[in-house]
Amino acid sequence: MDITELRDRILNQDRRALARAITLVESGRSDHREQAAALLDALRPAGRQAIRIGLSGTPGVGKSTFIESFGMFLTAQGMRVAVLAVDPSSARSGGSILGDKTRMERLSRDKHAFIRPSPSQTHLGGVARRTREAVALCEAANFDVVLIETVGVGQSETVVSEMSDLFLLLLAPAGGDELQGVKRGIMEMADLILVNKADGDLKATATRTCADYSGALRLLRKRPQDPEGFPKAMTVSAIEENGLDEAWAQMCELTSWRRAQGQWDSRRAAQARHWFIEELRQTVLAQLETPKALQEINGLAADVAENKLSPSAAADRVLKALHIPQA
Amino acid sequence: MDITELRDRILNQDRRALARAITLVESGRSDHREQAAALLDALRPAGRQAIRIGLSGTPGVGKSTFIESFGMFLTAQGMRVAVLAVDPSSARSGGSILGDKTRMERLSRDKHAFIRPSPSQTHLGGVARRTREAVALCEAANFDVVLIETVGVGQSETVVSEMSDLFLLLLAPAGGDELQGVKRGIMEMADLILVNKADGDLKATATRTCADYSGALRLLRKRPQDPEGFPKAMTVSAIEENGLDEAWAQMCELTSWRRAQGQWDSRRAAQARHWFIEELRQTVLAQLETPKALQEINGLAADVAENKLSPSAAADRVLKALHIPQA
Repeated sequence: MDITELRDRILNQDRRALARAITLVESGRSDHREQAAALLDALRPAGRQAIRIGLSGTPGVGKSTFIESFGMFLTAQGMRVAVLAVDPSSARSGGSILGDKTRMERLSRDKHAFIRPSPSQTHLGGVARRTREAVALCEAANFDVVLIETVGVGQSETVVSEMSDLFLLLLAPAGGDELQGVKRGIMEMADLILVNKADGDLKATATRTCADYSGALRLLRKRPQDPEGFPKAMTVSAIEENGLDEAWAQMCELTSWRRAQGQWDSRRAAQARHWFIEELRQTVLAQLETPKALQEINGLAADVAENKLSPSAAADRVLKALHIPQA
Repeated sequence: MDITELRDRILNQDRRALARAITLVESGRSDHREQAAALLDALRPAGRQAIRIGLSGTPGVGKSTFIESFGMFLTAQGMRVAVLAVDPSSARSGGSILGDKTRMERLSRDKHAFIRPSPSQTHLGGVARRTREAVALCEAANFDVVLIETVGVGQSETVVSEMSDLFLLLLAPAGGDELQGVKRGIMEMADLILVNKADGDLKATATRTCADYSGALRLLRKRPQDPEGFPKAMTVSAIEENGLDEAWAQMCELTSWRRAQGQWDSRRAAQARHWFIEELRQTVLAQLETPKALQEINGLAADVAENKLSPSAAADRVLKALHIPQA
């Protein structure tokens, strides 16, 4: 299938073409990279935009169940939903352990939904580019909502937040002391905190946890991208499908306000600039990770550690051997 | 003066030669860089080591007074003391505002002390290399203690801690709430917290503040480089010159323990490796900061922000224009 045909099929919402295109952007082969770039360029003029929703939550908070319930809720409203995952840890297992489709059986059978298992990658940098490109493909294929899930390993929340219009933090009901387990940096990224499992025996705890987080959010500095009352915390029950309508209403309110204020566009522009610079940085740093570079570096590391050679002199030798210019 | 003569004079503890050599390592000129590298190589075989003490403290804690009193205390014991400063903010003022020698008048007249005002630099990366090299020169000039002071702007504590054998955090007496003003990351670097101004009206507050920090330190994870009871907090009065002997005794105890355990050497080895890699990273990243690179990047930034060009495609064009290979 040539690029023009692939483009047309994606614009016509062909799911198999979309899946194929995502495989293309995930490939590391240089001919594939060139084809992927040509495809993305060909799709850009369509100018389609989805709401990109980043979602983070540690294992055990019911993330898969939430994505399934929330996804079904959205498709029931007539929307088309794509689910992507950023999982740097999957480099080890070669993909999600259970497989995303197995985790979300109902949603994977919904013809208005598209679920893409996380690719196996070694570098978070590579994961970021491939996921951004997969998001762009889903937007071109006319999805209304793209959910980008992260397992919350290392820097992955930051990466996902930098490619999302909205960032949701899914939490489990917990005692007051455990509240501090959420890093301040992650809290500060959240537009909406959803305390899941507000059902059965955990309902009262969920309500109390939600109140704790509401209090914690009020202590954070006001952000320019928020109207009055945001970010906020709410309870949901993914399993009983409760609170999803209210959560979605909040997301819509926030989205409308940001669009009206120009915050939506300026955020997307800032994100694009961020990824431009980040990609440049990652590529120049990759010069130090080639087999030849690692050989040079490892060959001098012992002398540096034993103070037989200064760090600067050693760096100088490596840079000369790699023909990297020094300012 | 040629490099051999400069080397000999430095080894003979000639202060003017030392000052001249530091000027050489601070220079950005490529011929000066080469001479500096040759000089450092020529001095290395002497294998002299000082105790490198990093010192951080926010403005107003009495850092200059402390360095003066502590420096005078050390020279009174027969030791030779060098004081260097890492001040990335001085790029604006072209050096410390008042000048380090004015700040420490008594110590600057002491013939066993050497004070070097902070150079004006734009990059923290550059400051780090120049300071490390100045430390190496002071060691070759047979100083027993090298104090490396930081004003605590941005990442400068981390930089100083990575080139120090011991890291001191100087704090002012304060109410309980203000304790949280010290970032956890900075606390975790400290080997010794000194609560200054334990004199006059502030004595009781200083004692209480010290107890608060002792408690906070006990909550931190035990570090392999510490014997029982470290890191610890103590009170000092720089102005009354109280507690300096006890603080020095603690530094000696910690130093002896680390030497005996092999922690001293392994830390220096790890630091050397760190600076080797860091210098490589800074140099390859500097490829993106040349006038040509900035012109290329700025020329495409608007198209990227307006989504006329993808971040990846823009990065690709910049890298091609700069002849930087892509993996």
